[in-house]
Amino acid sequence: MSKALPTRSENYSEWYNELVKRADLAETSAVRGCMVIKPYGYSIWEKMQRALDDMFKETGHQNAYFPLFIPKSYLSKEASHVEGFAKECAVVTHYRLKNDPNGGGVIVDPEAKLEEELIVRPTSETVIWSTYKNWIQSYRDLPLLINQWANVVRWEMRTRLFLRTTEFLWQEGHTAHSTSAEAVAETKQMLEIYAQFAEEWMALPVVKGVKTANERFAGAVDTYCIEALMQDGKALQAGTSHFLGQNFANAFDVKFQDKEGKLEYVWGTSWGVSTRLMGALIMAHSDDSGLVLPPKLAPIQVVIVPIYKNEEQLTQISEKVSEITKQLRKKGISVKFDNNDAYKPGYKFAEYELKGVPVRLAMGARDLENNTVEVARRDTKTKETVSLDGIVDQISALLDNIQESIYNKALAFREENTYKVDTFEEFNKVLDTKGGFILAHWDGTSETEEKIKEETKATIRCVPLNSVEEEGVCIYTGKPSSRRVVFARAY
Amino acid sequence: MSKALPTRSENYSEWYNELVKRADLAETSAVRGCMVIKPYGYSIWEKMQRALDDMFKETGHQNAYFPLFIPKSYLSKEASHVEGFAKECAVVTHYRLKNDPNGGGVIVDPEAKLEEELIVRPTSETVIWSTYKNWIQSYRDLPLLINQWANVVRWEMRTRLFLRTTEFLWQEGHTAHSTSAEAVAETKQMLEIYAQFAEEWMALPVVKGVKTANERFAGAVDTYCIEALMQDGKALQAGTSHFLGQNFANAFDVKFQDKEGKLEYVWGTSWGVSTRLMGALIMAHSDDSGLVLPPKLAPIQVVIVPIYKNEEQLTQISEKVSEITKQLRKKGISVKFDNNDAYKPGYKFAEYELKGVPVRLAMGARDLENNTVEVARRDTKTKETVSLDGIVDQISALLDNIQESIYNKALAFREENTYKVDTFEEFNKVLDTKGGFILAHWDGTSETEEKIKEETKATIRCVPLNSVEEEGVCIYTGKPSSRRVVFARAY
Repeated sequence: MSKALPTRSENYSEWYNELVKRADLAETSAVRGCMVIKPYGYSIWEKMQRALDDMFKETGHQNAYFPLFIPKSYLSKEASHVEGFAKECAVVTHYRLKNDPNGGGVIVDPEAKLEEELIVRPTSETVIWSTYKNWIQSYRDLPLLINQWANVVRWEMRTRLFLRTTEFLWQEGHTAHSTSAEAVAETKQMLEIYAQFAEEWMALPVVKGVKTANERFAGAVDTYCIEALMQDGKALQAGTSHFLGQNFANAFDVKFQDKEGKLEYVWGTSWGVSTRLMGALIMAHSDDSGLVLPPKLAPIQVVIVPIYKNEEQLTQISEKVSEITKQLRKKGISVKFDNNDAYKPGYKFAEYELKGVPVRLAMGARDLENNTVEVARRDTKTKETVSLDGIVDQISALLDNIQESIYNKALAFREENTYKVDTFEEFNKVLDTKGGFILAHWDGTSETEEKIKEETKATIRCVPLNSVEEEGVCIYTGKPSSRRVVFARAY
Repeated sequence: MSKALPTRSENYSEWYNELVKRADLAETSAVRGCMVIKPYGYSIWEKMQRALDDMFKETGHQNAYFPLFIPKSYLSKEASHVEGFAKECAVVTHYRLKNDPNGGGVIVDPEAKLEEELIVRPTSETVIWSTYKNWIQSYRDLPLLINQWANVVRWEMRTRLFLRTTEFLWQEGHTAHSTSAEAVAETKQMLEIYAQFAEEWMALPVVKGVKTANERFAGAVDTYCIEALMQDGKALQAGTSHFLGQNFANAFDVKFQDKEGKLEYVWGTSWGVSTRLMGALIMAHSDDSGLVLPPKLAPIQVVIVPIYKNEEQLTQISEKVSEITKQLRKKGISVKFDNNDAYKPGYKFAEYELKGVPVRLAMGARDLENNTVEVARRDTKTKETVSLDGIVDQISALLDNIQESIYNKALAFREENTYKVDTFEEFNKVLDTKGGFILAHWDGTSETEEKIKEETKATIRCVPLNSVEEEGVCIYTGKPSSRRVVFARAY
């Protein structure tokens, strides 16, 4: 709290880094690229987990747990999969340390070398499909709808807290089906669940779409995604759902006997969201004073700060507050009464602003007299003094209002920052002056996509599911195109 | 379901292994020593997690997340700690794979060797205390009460599902305090929480005690534990809580300024329970027909099996059942109505017996006429036909009764299998013919403890907290002893 945050306009990147640290969300660790998720940050993640987990279970999925380690040969079984992950694998080669007989301290014991190296899972398709081989014999064993909450490791050269870390936490769903249609339906269902979670819980509007071949998950036939727009005009991929076709069933020889007794390869999907969502949540809503959290994910929804000159006043305020607190909690609203005497109200106000607590109540001597309380909302930074009569219902409604309002603000921002462009010149101009989502025609080739990426650092975020057919020409090659895709520079 | 389980008396060890697999709790994986926790097993673990997590939070603890990897030098900072864990460490030495230029497939890229090897955490004291150094400056920052749910890896040579696996899931609490007394109180509080959880949720009676120096956690000043007795007469350590003194504060230079402005080393604790609890749960209560689960941890508490000759009967039964189901669910009881037409009632009965569903209801045509239902309880394998009037309250009470009854049975078993012995001859005889907890005098030396272990394979499980002073002589050396300790062969 010693000095102000960098502002977003000054240095968006620094603003983000400082905010994550100062709001006690996470910090870097001694292990390069790995983060420590601090209690306040973790409690937001726990709320995300709970909401998502409930949605997965409501749609018939069960949780399970698969090994952290993957034998190197497993990773290699699906050709494009290993191609995609080989460059960022943490490899376990030994299983013991010992004291150096030459006095060099504790060293790796060369005699404890593994016959086959183990990869710390970057994702679990291979180990899970090798298991599914034993679980699936008949159509009666399908569909198999499983999810796992786990940590995964991808050795990243340039890392940023939550957005790109060597180790991250996520959930990965892995399902198996007897028909292609059913697997595609599952892939789309999970995309819808992610979109619903992003919009209803994170107050984050997202574009649903499908990735181009270039941006597809290594081993997938199709990758669906949700894409969100951050305040600096960059896109962030917030979740992906993959239709795997029969690729992993082929690689691991997973077949089932259909109703007619014929042996067929199984159809698969996988889908995941990660602690990256924390980054999206922070960057989408927060401002130069700190975090702005949607009430549904805020660890503390209401903070109450007493303003008093003496012990007697504090006692009176505490009594008044305890009634309100009890009633709010009864409604499932999380409340903190901060009567810590070591800090002044002004300090506390700044602290809860930084931490993004949606509603702050302040009560002083005059409020006691008048039966009122000052209600401040974090998102708009407005405040008003209101009567205590009916305060509980009012706060409950206010929290709903804030949730909706944050969403609407983010939606309006995205709409203002979505541009249709028809020439490459215009494309470059928008990219460099405004950023945002750019809807443009593209000739459908990976080659053109690559060239645009090289020249502009913008990628095709997705082909939106709701895009309409429209005749046009590729902004880069002038070749014909039948629909616009979403371009953006991205995290 | 093709053939019966091995019986406990025939081969306890085989009975356990088969039961874990057939009841769909877990299975071995392709990675040596790592298990796959299957959905049914994982749902029991999730219930354990939820109950424990609530207890931790009620006592002021917060969750956080620390890195999976520990730099080798960190592990080495606390001398006895590295001594304890060096022999079973998975070591990451490289961060990339590549295609072998000589055509050997995918190989570890020798150019991607880490400067310092990383250890996959066997426990997180070192990485956490290195972080606490930055979090703690003043007495105002204390106590720091943090817990982590995570996977850990210890390279075990002989593994068994849940009981001893290379990777396992656990929670590890790590707290920091300004005084020794407060840290000791925390250590004991967490032991009480573990005991309460074991007894109230797992229906597992435990002995609370303190470990001898030999059995202490590597880096602790004192290790407290809860010890349970399995049906084969072997002990199982179900949870530990360590008073770390200032050992890790010393190793990582974690000091705080006290109220008088003096710099002092911080006092620490750590405590954990793991998926090993699943093993304890299974072995303590189950029988030759399968699992016996305490209702509080059963994924399905009540299963309803319809017995019908035609579609019409099934429809009538389904209607009747749907009312009961709705009311049971309203009371928070989990119910499954198994109307799967592919299997006969007898098959289903055996299946739910194997899976340990506490209460089974069966309803047939005669029940429809008489307004009755057959209620079978899994633990006693008794059944009776009762009226549907008041059935919901009756089942609710029955579940409570089963929970208590399972606990009482386990407690009676432990009492019957706890022996006071006063000579080494008697000690050996009880060990070899009965097993169980043996209360005996011991001279207090590590040397004697080691010798007894070598000769008998029995270890001192703990010095019970509730032991009374009693003059006696060591069963092995005849030297004086002032209290009995608990010996047993153990998992």
